[in-house]
Amino acid sequence: MIAVLTGGTGGAKFVDGLRQIVPPEELTLIVNTGDDLIWWGLYMSPDLDSIAYVLAGLLSKERGWGVKGDTFYCLQAMGDLGQPIWFHVGDRDLAVHLLRSKLMAEGKTLSEATKEIASRLGVTAKILPMTNSRVESRIGTPVGELSFEEYFVQRWYQDPVQSVHFAGAAEAQPAPGVVDAIMSANAILLAPSNPVTSIGPILAVPGIREALRETQAPVVAVSPIVGGAPVAGPAGILMAAQGLPVSIAGVAQAYRDFLDLLVVDTRDAAAAEKLRETGFHVQCARTVMKTAEDKAQLARAVVALISGASTAPASTD
Amino acid sequence: MIAVLTGGTGGAKFVDGLRQIVPPEELTLIVNTGDDLIWWGLYMSPDLDSIAYVLAGLLSKERGWGVKGDTFYCLQAMGDLGQPIWFHVGDRDLAVHLLRSKLMAEGKTLSEATKEIASRLGVTAKILPMTNSRVESRIGTPVGELSFEEYFVQRWYQDPVQSVHFAGAAEAQPAPGVVDAIMSANAILLAPSNPVTSIGPILAVPGIREALRETQAPVVAVSPIVGGAPVAGPAGILMAAQGLPVSIAGVAQAYRDFLDLLVVDTRDAAAAEKLRETGFHVQCARTVMKTAEDKAQLARAVVALISGASTAPASTD
Repeated sequence: MIAVLTGGTGGAKFVDGLRQIVPPEELTLIVNTGDDLIWWGLYMSPDLDSIAYVLAGLLSKERGWGVKGDTFYCLQAMGDLGQPIWFHVGDRDLAVHLLRSKLMAEGKTLSEATKEIASRLGVTAKILPMTNSRVESRIGTPVGELSFEEYFVQRWYQDPVQSVHFAGAAEAQPAPGVVDAIMSANAILLAPSNPVTSIGPILAVPGIREALRETQAPVVAVSPIVGGAPVAGPAGILMAAQGLPVSIAGVAQAYRDFLDLLVVDTRDAAAAEKLRETGFHVQCARTVMKTAEDKAQLARAVVALISGASTAPASTD
Repeated sequence: MIAVLTGGTGGAKFVDGLRQIVPPEELTLIVNTGDDLIWWGLYMSPDLDSIAYVLAGLLSKERGWGVKGDTFYCLQAMGDLGQPIWFHVGDRDLAVHLLRSKLMAEGKTLSEATKEIASRLGVTAKILPMTNSRVESRIGTPVGELSFEEYFVQRWYQDPVQSVHFAGAAEAQPAPGVVDAIMSANAILLAPSNPVTSIGPILAVPGIREALRETQAPVVAVSPIVGGAPVAGPAGILMAAQGLPVSIAGVAQAYRDFLDLLVVDTRDAAAAEKLRETGFHVQCARTVMKTAEDKAQLARAVVALISGASTAPASTD
């Protein structure tokens, strides 16, 4: 059994690789919900959706989010009605938001709604939201505090980041099954997701970070930073804003208290050598995923490395 | 100023004619909401939508409901998710349901949401729901009590009708502006809608029927029954179930306490003559609307007849 902490487009790509080489029944996905938003009156959970879609074989590979081949007629009509349309919801995608919102309005938890949607999509892997509470990533900028989607999608991450916090995290609890999955897994993987706003919110839920420290299973992270820059998105900006070096060392630092092994790209071999000298376990692999084969190859490499990963923290400072 | 009581596809066609010959600012539409339903968790008001769409020039003429040229990708996806899809909601149509549901969730009344949607669609005629309360047409059948949409759309009006009632009507109040519109109009028209489940719910809201009796303006109805049968839909079945003859005489009877003039189709000239003998004012016109010109012609004929209509009730029994 493998538990994966994931969020964002990098996470979805990594899971797309894993599903090619691990039986879905052996996968538990613990998913960031810090990007969740109310949009057009509906509850939207972009990272839960991406994971459900990728496991169902429905994710748009061109866009990295939403349903492949989707249309946007409702979005156009919402624009004609004077409603905001910067968050692009496709017509088929909308069905999942409608169903989730309906289930939650009926009193179901996000976990329960997630389970029902996954089942309806034919997904047999276990998808867990990090929490059933509302935890919202908030980005402080000169124009004010923004939700992650406002910062990332609406404003194209152009605003200087002054702060990041996870509103509601202190009062949140891990969703049912999350801590169990971490404690009972044979390995825990951290997808090459943004450490600040994709993995960060998960770690901010009290109990999850502690479980990662305590579990007997190896905790293996794949670096989203390659050659000193993020493969995609605002990870670099956000890491810098959090005082982390934008490098594999920064990733290692973000996870230092529970990480057993960091998998970095082959082009970071020199940086990996330096990082090893500070006491971290680091391995190299081809981590940039462009094709289906790239994804499978990375998943295969990471799974092969699991058995070699020590379960003792690589660094305890 | 003309006030029109309307519902269903016959009502939308009639309003499509009126908008061709009456300036929109001079039209107030008082619309049936007895067909309203919660669908996919959203509040849907089929008759309000049809009237808004027809006035905006967006109504599908092929279907008689929904948005012209609409697609149904979200509907297909909802079906794939195991959700009911017998009520056909198009992708563009969905935008109006989303906006209305959002506005109502924010505390707006149905009147206020209707006004905002009409304004967003560029409609300058005044569209009023009959009431802001929930009044639901309920059809008693051997398989149990059905909502109108269940009876009509889901089950193709195949079930024998044992009863019709309007749940919630006794406690309902006319929406703001409805009674005023009836009392201050120069004429009140009843569209060739189903008298039982399109006009009936409007008349069941306490105060509306009384206003129709009291207004000084002529009240003119167009018969939806032509040659002893409805032009379309279950009007005949429902009238029979309510003990009304399925004829122009049945329509006259449904409205007898406030009707000043009944406009019937030219092919009902003989029946019209008989009805006149019972004291009703009846005029003939071509009432079957297939083309845009048919609609305009009927509207023109009805408007021309208004001035000739007596404001005294034609029959007071």
